[in-house]
Amino acid sequence: MSKSGHLFLSPMALYVHKYGGTSMGSIERIQNVAKRVAKWHDAGHQIVVVPSAMSGETNRLLGMAKEIMAQPDGRELDMLASTGEQVSVALLAIALQALGKQAVSYAGWQVPIKTDSAFTKARIRSIDDAKVRKDLNAGKIVIITGFQGVDADGNITTLGRGGSDTSAVAVAAAIKAAECLIYTDVDGVYTTDPRVVSEARRLKTVTFEEMLEMASLGSKVLQIRSVEFAGNYKMPTRVLSSLTDPLTPLAEEAASGTLISFEEDKNMEQATITGIAFSRDEAKITVLGVPDRPGIAYQILGPVADANIEVDMIIQNQSVEGKTDFTFTVPRGEYAKAVEVLNNSVKAHIGAAAINGDTKVSKVSVVGVGMRSHVGIASQMFRTLSEEGVNIQMISTSEIKISVLIDEKYMELAVRALHKAFDLDSAK
Amino acid sequence: MSKSGHLFLSPMALYVHKYGGTSMGSIERIQNVAKRVAKWHDAGHQIVVVPSAMSGETNRLLGMAKEIMAQPDGRELDMLASTGEQVSVALLAIALQALGKQAVSYAGWQVPIKTDSAFTKARIRSIDDAKVRKDLNAGKIVIITGFQGVDADGNITTLGRGGSDTSAVAVAAAIKAAECLIYTDVDGVYTTDPRVVSEARRLKTVTFEEMLEMASLGSKVLQIRSVEFAGNYKMPTRVLSSLTDPLTPLAEEAASGTLISFEEDKNMEQATITGIAFSRDEAKITVLGVPDRPGIAYQILGPVADANIEVDMIIQNQSVEGKTDFTFTVPRGEYAKAVEVLNNSVKAHIGAAAINGDTKVSKVSVVGVGMRSHVGIASQMFRTLSEEGVNIQMISTSEIKISVLIDEKYMELAVRALHKAFDLDSAK
Repeated sequence: MSKSGHLFLSPMALYVHKYGGTSMGSIERIQNVAKRVAKWHDAGHQIVVVPSAMSGETNRLLGMAKEIMAQPDGRELDMLASTGEQVSVALLAIALQALGKQAVSYAGWQVPIKTDSAFTKARIRSIDDAKVRKDLNAGKIVIITGFQGVDADGNITTLGRGGSDTSAVAVAAAIKAAECLIYTDVDGVYTTDPRVVSEARRLKTVTFEEMLEMASLGSKVLQIRSVEFAGNYKMPTRVLSSLTDPLTPLAEEAASGTLISFEEDKNMEQATITGIAFSRDEAKITVLGVPDRPGIAYQILGPVADANIEVDMIIQNQSVEGKTDFTFTVPRGEYAKAVEVLNNSVKAHIGAAAINGDTKVSKVSVVGVGMRSHVGIASQMFRTLSEEGVNIQMISTSEIKISVLIDEKYMELAVRALHKAFDLDSAK
Repeated sequence: MSKSGHLFLSPMALYVHKYGGTSMGSIERIQNVAKRVAKWHDAGHQIVVVPSAMSGETNRLLGMAKEIMAQPDGRELDMLASTGEQVSVALLAIALQALGKQAVSYAGWQVPIKTDSAFTKARIRSIDDAKVRKDLNAGKIVIITGFQGVDADGNITTLGRGGSDTSAVAVAAAIKAAECLIYTDVDGVYTTDPRVVSEARRLKTVTFEEMLEMASLGSKVLQIRSVEFAGNYKMPTRVLSSLTDPLTPLAEEAASGTLISFEEDKNMEQATITGIAFSRDEAKITVLGVPDRPGIAYQILGPVADANIEVDMIIQNQSVEGKTDFTFTVPRGEYAKAVEVLNNSVKAHIGAAAINGDTKVSKVSVVGVGMRSHVGIASQMFRTLSEEGVNIQMISTSEIKISVLIDEKYMELAVRALHKAFDLDSAK
């Protein structure tokens, strides 16, 4: 890894550290976070920390509200839930002070981090860096609540679950940090799930677009909105482990994990494919014998969307004698509800012959920006699956991803075969 | 009770309700608070509620800080502790919404309640009523965090323990409420402790000055600063029970408890004495054989004050042959420390003969604004004690209070005898 190596040549750089709820889960863990942050500060860097609420705290708070009322008011939920991060920042400031550091904590409204007024799922509009910059220049470590901000009327808002990642990246962009370090309980992004393929390798770098595809495919390392934010602001973002010894030498820690970068690698030797993603959480539904006329896709999928069911892959067969079959996938947990919607609101209405489906399917994807400049990736993928006797039920493609839907019993086999076929087993 | 009866003739009055931590101690109790508040709102009144943190929460939060560091930074402690009330206001707003009421919660900084920057013991400087008034006029119930505010630099401050009472009275004064109702786990202020004198009666009204004396004498119904605040702003403040059925008829509830009033009762038939207060938590220290020269009191009490020990009653005996005895009382828990200070820093320095003391003493006081216009209260008090064979060790007086220090074994006897002698047993 050398891509961002130059950052560490700077005698003093500005970093944002983000720590998840597990890393902040007890007084002892908060003290470990403080040790890690102090180490970076000792090396001469300026540090802003964005911690999550202590693990379990947000659920505890929202649980009390739900005990009172099934659908509490969003404004009050945000007032309630935002306290979790406020507790975290104060405790972390105290832990840093106990180590002899100057540290100051801010709630989102104090920075301020301004958002729209969409309570419980607000979006950041602007971040004022004046106060933070002044503190940093005075030698202080600045700690800012993740997950929250303040709207134009002075109401507390939250960004929704996982919003602390987004806060961290947004703060990093606002203060023009050299890098945003997301400390979490995994040590980076892998070529595929190491529990499925023991040869899976940690990626030293991954592009923003690849990360977006991986995140949307269930590699839940980062909240997808934070990846989008990193992309919008071209903020180099590193995913690394908070489970290592907090006193790990800084140079080693700074090069660990996976860097989400925004320059495509110039190295021609790079692997064409970055990783193999997969999702078990799939179900397939086919509407048979549909009259092939304009608007039919909307007539089928409209009621499904109205029921708040997300549709992923969609294919429509070649029409035969004015009739066609229409197939799509939904999250497995929504399968029963989707079939019910189709039987009640769609089938008779459009004159479909039958509705059938399959909940024993999985999706496997090859992801890589390299495929933009390489032909034959799809054919290599299909050949590999064919050699293993895996039947492909559906296909969808994007510029940097090819996904196939297959029988779930072949999923591990397919992932392993593709991981090997695209040379991901070997060291990069 | 009729003193403030006219308030309830108003078709719509503005009230501040304050609920302590015990009243907010569980979801069920918060729902009871909501029922009680909704009842007042249903009757056409405008209501602002100032709740404390759920019982135990402030201790839990501060406990975590103390686990990290013995003397954490005040700013960060306030950041931490203020979350307790924020949780309370949000949950209460949700509980009121669940009853079909429009309710909105505010943290101190949102009102704003502006304070100085004395973290953990800040004092309120101003309260902006614009937002609150607008919400009230729109039919909303407004809920404001107790115990906290914001300083001129936008830092969260807290008012110190019991500060929610002070917040409530200050908010009531700022919005010109008709009355501030402090709901607590006692049902009012009594002529004396009912556990000592079964004939003790609840006072329907008490003057501000009497309340101040009672509060400072250990009738810990209200935080003393809140009583001072009520006095400064002449805010009628009622102490009443939060343990009654929340659906108690409003007229009955509005006349219950004890009203701290700011007009002296014009009724000539009123009792001369309002109540008998007492404190077991006393210790007496005598410095014997002190040279009687100017500055000697300071030389004795200065080192005691420097050790943060509060001195209460003080007497100096008539000088005999240039020597005198100097006696004072301290809280019983500070006795050993005070004696140590005197032995180490005072005795040899001033040439005192000896230091001795007694930890088995109690203070009993008769309190009442009536004694201003009645002579003979002190002599009646001393005669009563004499008839019971109780020896008086020290005496101190103020305009509305006479206190005596006695052997603790006579305390209950003295309180009962005085309660009877000053006609407090009979209905007013």
